[in-house]
Amino acid sequence: MKDGDKKTDMAASMLPDENVLQEVRKQRPLIHCITNYVTANDVANMILAVGASPVMADGLREVEDIARQSRALVLNMGTLRDSAAESMIAAGKIAAEMGRPVILDPVGAGASAFRTETALRIMAEVPCAVIRGNASEIRTLTGEMEVYSHGVDADEREKLTGHNRGNVVRMLRNLNQITGAVIVMTGEHDLIVDGQRSCLVKNGHAMMSQITGTGCMLDGILAALLAVSDQKIWFQSVVYAVAAHGICGEIAERKTVRADGGTGSFRMYFIDAMSRLQDIQIRKGADCEV
Amino acid sequence: MKDGDKKTDMAASMLPDENVLQEVRKQRPLIHCITNYVTANDVANMILAVGASPVMADGLREVEDIARQSRALVLNMGTLRDSAAESMIAAGKIAAEMGRPVILDPVGAGASAFRTETALRIMAEVPCAVIRGNASEIRTLTGEMEVYSHGVDADEREKLTGHNRGNVVRMLRNLNQITGAVIVMTGEHDLIVDGQRSCLVKNGHAMMSQITGTGCMLDGILAALLAVSDQKIWFQSVVYAVAAHGICGEIAERKTVRADGGTGSFRMYFIDAMSRLQDIQIRKGADCEV
Amino acid sequence: MKDGDKKTDMAASMLPDENVLQEVRKQRPLIHCITNYVTANDVANMILAVGASPVMADGLREVEDIARQSRALVLNMGTLRDSAAESMIAAGKIAAEMGRPVILDPVGAGASAFRTETALRIMAEVPCAVIRGNASEIRTLTGEMEVYSHGVDADEREKLTGHNRGNVVRMLRNLNQITGAVIVMTGEHDLIVDGQRSCLVKNGHAMMSQITGTGCMLDGILAALLAVSDQKIWFQSVVYAVAAHGICGEIAERKTVRADGGTGSFRMYFIDAMSRLQDIQIRKGADCEV
Repeated sequence: MKDGDKKTDMAASMLPDENVLQEVRKQRPLIHCITNYVTANDVANMILAVGASPVMADGLREVEDIARQSRALVLNMGTLRDSAAESMIAAGKIAAEMGRPVILDPVGAGASAFRTETALRIMAEVPCAVIRGNASEIRTLTGEMEVYSHGVDADEREKLTGHNRGNVVRMLRNLNQITGAVIVMTGEHDLIVDGQRSCLVKNGHAMMSQITGTGCMLDGILAALLAVSDQKIWFQSVVYAVAAHGICGEIAERKTVRADGGTGSFRMYFIDAMSRLQDIQIRKGADCEV
Repeated sequence: MKDGDKKTDMAASMLPDENVLQEVRKQRPLIHCITNYVTANDVANMILAVGASPVMADGLREVEDIARQSRALVLNMGTLRDSAAESMIAAGKIAAEMGRPVILDPVGAGASAFRTETALRIMAEVPCAVIRGNASEIRTLTGEMEVYSHGVDADEREKLTGHNRGNVVRMLRNLNQITGAVIVMTGEHDLIVDGQRSCLVKNGHAMMSQITGTGCMLDGILAALLAVSDQKIWFQSVVYAVAAHGICGEIAERKTVRADGGTGSFRMYFIDAMSRLQDIQIRKGADCEV
Repeated sequence: MKDGDKKTDMAASMLPDENVLQEVRKQRPLIHCITNYVTANDVANMILAVGASPVMADGLREVEDIARQSRALVLNMGTLRDSAAESMIAAGKIAAEMGRPVILDPVGAGASAFRTETALRIMAEVPCAVIRGNASEIRTLTGEMEVYSHGVDADEREKLTGHNRGNVVRMLRNLNQITGAVIVMTGEHDLIVDGQRSCLVKNGHAMMSQITGTGCMLDGILAALLAVSDQKIWFQSVVYAVAAHGICGEIAERKTVRADGGTGSFRMYFIDAMSRLQDIQIRKGADCEV
């Protein structure tokens, strides 16, 4: 066996054997989102494009009812209000108790004390399946390094490079040890780490950072795919979701160029791509480095 | 007179004689919406596409001022918050007192006790012109049958079929007796019932359920069309609005296929279609069964 | 020198010497928005299309933290809630103290007592760089004339015409005297006034009023351009932003017609146009009358 084949085999082992996308479309799982008002429409449309059924509900008086019926939960901290933390924790506890995946997106952690505290509090009280953020947000949660926050975007100095991957993996693994969650640090390339494995997904296109909501939409994709996955393969389904998201970005960029469009067109083609994506395209297109 | 002609005549009698869409574009009525943050943008753009002028305002301190100036009111319970019920009732009472149509959309009634209670409370306190929901929501309001809620979507077992139409009409008529409202139960086909009449509108396309907000956008269309209609023809204007909405779905689907697009494109073409729709297209395209 | 040349020179003097758009794309300034949930997504995408980085945050517990890191602040009163005024004033004071441009959009001032009072209160407590509204909103703030409010749209009788420009300029100048802000009254043509100058920008297209959010998106463009401009040229950068916004409307309208589209397409092409706009197009296309 050649070294290249080994590598390919190892990368392939990062993906689930199941056709997870097809499974979502068969089961149409209900996905509960407590999310921000900026991108809620995009997230709902993306969850529908994947093939699942979104329900956006954040009122403290109903989140427990909704969480009980849902197969996965997204907790996204964008446009955080005082009351939202209580709703997120109440819903998160129920979802986790029922063994359902909770996706935490600590949007803007590090950008304000309020968001950092809320993220840490949710992380402490809710067993999350996945924590997904950019470099600034993830670093903030680890408390390990100096954070150079730039609003809700990551700072240049924190980004993943060829030189610092080892250190970054160690940092993400520490966060995994504390929380038990699969950690996803998104950026130009996306790094996914759990207790044993790490995987770098190189799919995607720079245009994805020129529209709002691509990260939030990934939260929805993660929730939909994990909702139909056995807990044993959650890591693989995370890699699969991240690759699918990136592949849709690649498809959308090509369509945008062909149509001589801009970022408005890209946003539409991005959702178009997911609504027509097939498992085979993810397997063929996934660019994973172990 | 042949039987087929009779049928056609009866179906035609379900539509208003007036060119309601043209009238909206002439009068540009102000439509007050208390609605959810997921689809508010789509609803505003749809109301503008119809030719009316939307104003989204839900703060308790101003809804009465706004309701007083508006020609119709939408009460949509998506992403319901504690305070929203008070705002909805306050605005609803004023609109109804002034003889203006109130459209109630009990989004998610049945999915949480909070939403069910709120829907029943609004229904009891505000005289609504139209109550529009999917099968689960409408059944919840009638309290007649077991409800199989699936988040904000209707459950399979509750859907309208060729076999249960008689029972469903009776259920909707009961709700009409209690509330005085025209009842619209949307689904693959849309059933519209008041005290004497029932009409099944078969326009539309399955793709409409693959984007978020088509139901909410229908609320806006209903409000705009009823705003310029005499109360005597509200039933007909409801049928007209539901047919127009379905026809836009059909146009959008054809454009999406032609453009080799997905659900993102469909959403854009759906609003495109309404912004260019003419009354003559509704009259020709309406597929109504008495 | 011919009279025509003089006029052209005076119009040119209304534009900044700097390539402000290019500067935004180089610096990627963080723009803090406290805005409404109807158009927040459009505003964020427009700020990204200009080349800046949006952060939408309105919680009282964090707006000061966010304002401190941001280079400009948008205060948009659409879908105003009780708590929003406190957040706006808290953030506004910090931004102004730090010498950063604050853009106030008094959406719906005149449509409800609550909005009028809130706008006047913000105006009194926060030194704004720009106040931007339609004719009804601006007139309401001046308290000078009878206001014929039509929801969040301007009333026909208040619009700027060839005959009343002198009076309107005087009214806007009074508002400038009280607030120190550059006053922008948008409509078919856009009038920009400070203590010494007035400029009428004739760019744009009627289709811009057929989608929601064009005004809110202009707030974001103004914030991004002023964020990288020296305070001395804020007036010119406002003219530049207003012209750029109108030029994008013109480009989008041409694309919509060519694609045989409607208002949904127009909205997409509008953001497309900004994401590809270059300074040279603004200089060539700006239609300014001194």
